[in-house]
Amino acid sequence: MIKFLSLIVVAVFSLSLPAAEPRGTGDMGIIIERANGSVLIIETTHNSQLYRVEGLGDLSHASAVFSRDERHAYVFGRDGGLSKIDLLSGTLLKRVMQAGNSIGGAISQDGKIIAVSNYEPGGVKLFDSTSLELLSDIPAHYAESKQSKTVGLVDAPNQHFVFSLFEGNQIWLLDAHNPKQPKIQKFADIGLQPYDALISSNGRFYIAGLFGEEGLALLDLWQLDKGVQRILPHYGKDDPKKPVYKMPHLEGWALTDDYALFPAVGRNDVLVADRRTWQLVKKIPVYGQPVFVMSRPDGRQVWVNFAMPNNDTVQIIDTLKLAVMTTKKIGKGVLHMEFTPRGEAVWLSVRDEDKVQIYGTEDGQLRGELPAHKPSGIFFAARAHQSGL
Amino acid sequence: MIKFLSLIVVAVFSLSLPAAEPRGTGDMGIIIERANGSVLIIETTHNSQLYRVEGLGDLSHASAVFSRDERHAYVFGRDGGLSKIDLLSGTLLKRVMQAGNSIGGAISQDGKIIAVSNYEPGGVKLFDSTSLELLSDIPAHYAESKQSKTVGLVDAPNQHFVFSLFEGNQIWLLDAHNPKQPKIQKFADIGLQPYDALISSNGRFYIAGLFGEEGLALLDLWQLDKGVQRILPHYGKDDPKKPVYKMPHLEGWALTDDYALFPAVGRNDVLVADRRTWQLVKKIPVYGQPVFVMSRPDGRQVWVNFAMPNNDTVQIIDTLKLAVMTTKKIGKGVLHMEFTPRGEAVWLSVRDEDKVQIYGTEDGQLRGELPAHKPSGIFFAARAHQSGL
Repeated sequence: MIKFLSLIVVAVFSLSLPAAEPRGTGDMGIIIERANGSVLIIETTHNSQLYRVEGLGDLSHASAVFSRDERHAYVFGRDGGLSKIDLLSGTLLKRVMQAGNSIGGAISQDGKIIAVSNYEPGGVKLFDSTSLELLSDIPAHYAESKQSKTVGLVDAPNQHFVFSLFEGNQIWLLDAHNPKQPKIQKFADIGLQPYDALISSNGRFYIAGLFGEEGLALLDLWQLDKGVQRILPHYGKDDPKKPVYKMPHLEGWALTDDYALFPAVGRNDVLVADRRTWQLVKKIPVYGQPVFVMSRPDGRQVWVNFAMPNNDTVQIIDTLKLAVMTTKKIGKGVLHMEFTPRGEAVWLSVRDEDKVQIYGTEDGQLRGELPAHKPSGIFFAARAHQSGL
Repeated sequence: MIKFLSLIVVAVFSLSLPAAEPRGTGDMGIIIERANGSVLIIETTHNSQLYRVEGLGDLSHASAVFSRDERHAYVFGRDGGLSKIDLLSGTLLKRVMQAGNSIGGAISQDGKIIAVSNYEPGGVKLFDSTSLELLSDIPAHYAESKQSKTVGLVDAPNQHFVFSLFEGNQIWLLDAHNPKQPKIQKFADIGLQPYDALISSNGRFYIAGLFGEEGLALLDLWQLDKGVQRILPHYGKDDPKKPVYKMPHLEGWALTDDYALFPAVGRNDVLVADRRTWQLVKKIPVYGQPVFVMSRPDGRQVWVNFAMPNNDTVQIIDTLKLAVMTTKKIGKGVLHMEFTPRGEAVWLSVRDEDKVQIYGTEDGQLRGELPAHKPSGIFFAARAHQSGL
């Protein structure tokens, strides 16, 4: 009888502790702990940590995308690892080493394909988002036996991906309707050494930054016959004697209704261009060399963080006045910022102080703080619903 | 022993069938069954129905918003009922009769407050989104002992709501930081009989349509000191002899990067205005009197449905050419359209044929169909992350 009962108890116990807790996933997100190879799973309604997931390898330059149901996160590690995490159970479901060195990824419009961009050996790979099975391997050959690093990989509407070839000086538009045999349209001679790129939130304008020369390359996906145009011809590092402490990310551009605000390379300025003409409208002097220039979802504020030695501070730009309205000392090593989907709060990684801070964006007040081990990227599940992130 | 065992079995059974199934909620949504007082809970990854929830009263003009975690839907019924549904368990958690006749609602930026707009007795009420407890009742008095119907209620950034007074000819901006004692800023003499309104997706421009005269009233929430401006002064019913089969909804305006596309009242045209100057740019002739003019999330296509007797057809406008590209016969009674968040598909209610159809937006092909009893509004949970819906 005792033995019988204990069997029953075990059964009840395992049934009453389901691996995954039912809850809405729209307010969830992850925080990369770069030094540990781990991520925290958090939620933004009560600002709490739910789980820590370990064993993700080298996350020193990691990013993430989310499944269309906002249940799973896909984490792209620097070491070429692609990891799939279940947000509801806080478990690492699968991890594949897909390359020697990777630089980021994207998820297709329909949520079925994960694309990963690789430095080593170069090229892009497509994976099934359910199984992480390899669907195709697209080497980035730009000349006989020359393969390029790929950068600036983003998803675009109509089941496309777009990326750039660093050594190849090209932009490739990948049609993934048949992910085992993708079609590629190539745009050559777009400028020297594209090093990163962004796509506008409507998925129309793909803009690649150039390392080898000044200016940027713009591809209008609605009008491919126009080819790649050059914009902001004087954008880049204009003083060779001045050091660049950190090359700014292009995904850290803020595109508002009227303006693009973006970091000047190696200078203490945020640049403002008119989004219709791409003419420079203004330079806004800021506290340091800007890294991320991020728009609050409504576009009313733009938050800026900085390269060393100014990475303890953020500034907030008023986009109507196009001027800095607030300077905030946060703490050492502010690496990344992520707004809640409707913009009432922003989460900041403060790497050197091993914490994440949460500020209200209207009053600028600290709302909460979570301990985190050397936090870097913060990614909320709401990204699942947006193109190009 | 038998009795003891059966008790254990019951306990196991109830534990092994949790009320709510764990799953991601980002791909979920609801469909209003207007004649039955019921809603279907669906998901857009496999295009399936998960539950039917009954007992929601008169849903003949119903709308819905979602909690910030995308777990709960709040349904606003025509009869003044406010219903809270759990998407994960498919159950009606709570229902309050909050007025005699209501016209829609909104959820605050932080997700904590539900606002409902009422015809009878008029005014707006605020509720706690967890408990549905009444927080405050704001009668819309515009003159001594005169109370107005309220229309065009939307949420706005910084914990605000905006709505219009139909008889009062006013726009009210409600600050809900303290929802038990909200502050109200009133804009008077905005034009005769505002009948509906919209807010731009960034939460900046509130535009009210006028029933009593031509033109629209625009309030720039970033520049309140400018007051209410009049735009598109000739917009309205311009031929008094021509019948208007259905007054178009203002939330059925499509705002792309460059243009606003919106239904002409009582005419077979979609109008196009420049979003910076609000000057009319073009009239696009269409198949019938347009009702909803809805932009695909990327703005590349705009889908239009029509009033009787043309409500069996939709047309798709190419927003680069500003011309109709496709005319599709769907079936009798196309009442509403909802795009998946990243725009790869659109769901259409076909009321008179008791079904919902799902089309791919790139190829225009039918991807699926679900039976539904007199379906009207379709609302996807991704709305949780957007302002003003």
